[in-house]
Amino acid sequence: MPTTTDTEPGRSDSAAGGARRGRPGYDQETVLNIAVQVFNKHGYDATSMGTLAENLGISKSAIYHHVPSKGDLLRLALDHALAPLEAVGDDERARTGSAGERLEFFLRGTIRVLIERQSYVTLLLRLRGNTEVERSALERRRAMDRRLAELVVAAQEEGSLRGDIDPRTTTRLLFGTINSLVEWYRPDGPVTAESLEENAIGMMLDGLHTRDK
Amino acid sequence: MPTTTDTEPGRSDSAAGGARRGRPGYDQETVLNIAVQVFNKHGYDATSMGTLAENLGISKSAIYHHVPSKGDLLRLALDHALAPLEAVGDDERARTGSAGERLEFFLRGTIRVLIERQSYVTLLLRLRGNTEVERSALERRRAMDRRLAELVVAAQEEGSLRGDIDPRTTTRLLFGTINSLVEWYRPDGPVTAESLEENAIGMMLDGLHTRDK
Repeated sequence: MPTTTDTEPGRSDSAAGGARRGRPGYDQETVLNIAVQVFNKHGYDATSMGTLAENLGISKSAIYHHVPSKGDLLRLALDHALAPLEAVGDDERARTGSAGERLEFFLRGTIRVLIERQSYVTLLLRLRGNTEVERSALERRRAMDRRLAELVVAAQEEGSLRGDIDPRTTTRLLFGTINSLVEWYRPDGPVTAESLEENAIGMMLDGLHTRDK
Repeated sequence: MPTTTDTEPGRSDSAAGGARRGRPGYDQETVLNIAVQVFNKHGYDATSMGTLAENLGISKSAIYHHVPSKGDLLRLALDHALAPLEAVGDDERARTGSAGERLEFFLRGTIRVLIERQSYVTLLLRLRGNTEVERSALERRRAMDRRLAELVVAAQEEGSLRGDIDPRTTTRLLFGTINSLVEWYRPDGPVTAESLEENAIGMMLDGLHTRDK
């Protein structure tokens, strides 16, 4: 029941309405959305349940109504980034066709998830691995690194990618370029998601040089 | 007098020797090197002079012997990244020749500084802008963004860069790709600095696709 999705952090229907028996006016998705913003701003380690409660404008016990612990909140939030990213690699189009086509599908799909789930991916990319939840997420990231590395090698072997670039470095460069998007892209800015995707794919696969040079 | 440059953090000649009248065995450069590592590990805001002293294995007053304040330490450290980065843009080769050549020189020079000054650039890239020293550094970063943007536009206008990519997005993509190197590159790993530079430049300017495709 996303009753207050459009409500600003710090305000909830229950607080405004006053008479709702202390039941928070947020659904789990909204709690998650705000929690991720707070984690990204202050860092996960430095964010207490008290800070979260303050930002949500509800009591700590009201948060526990949604999730048992801060770690569960993190796990749910990270899954909002990891599940769609993994779905890209599991998609039929990342598994059939030429390696070059599969690679391009994988890269485009990853860019789209980064744009659609920007704050969740930002959280994922800033993890330090201090807890079991974090280490499990980092292991899922490494599995995606291996998936991309395999696609790069396959595309080099089939001849659609140049062979003079180290595949491991290429994998790092591709994810480095794509991941950097979360740091500066603003969905409400002048660059559309489609244009960003084309520009990034254009640079990575075809380069910035004009082709007749 | 870099007497203890090869000494591990937490150990100093004066501590080992015992009889040196409390004068710290570090020179300013070594203090800076260790401070930057501590800042990068814990975050600048979260690092106290006490934490620094602990990591250096010297007293707080011994640090004050080298620098008047934590902010001065930050300013000096940031200048270790900013000065060589700015020197790239000021170099004759970034100012004469075709725009395409100037752009390539600028990108290659920036990559080299990132590799040579990795921990200092990491510190620069993680700044949040909470203090005047940080804001001043961020302004110098923005000046470099503008410099790169100008080179991109000039190279597009002369026809050496493709015209179908938004110059502002291209600038972001280029710095995003290059800056991401500090996150994973290890000087003692299997990839040499020269190979990394060639691979990154190769992808950004010529793309990963084989040219006959």
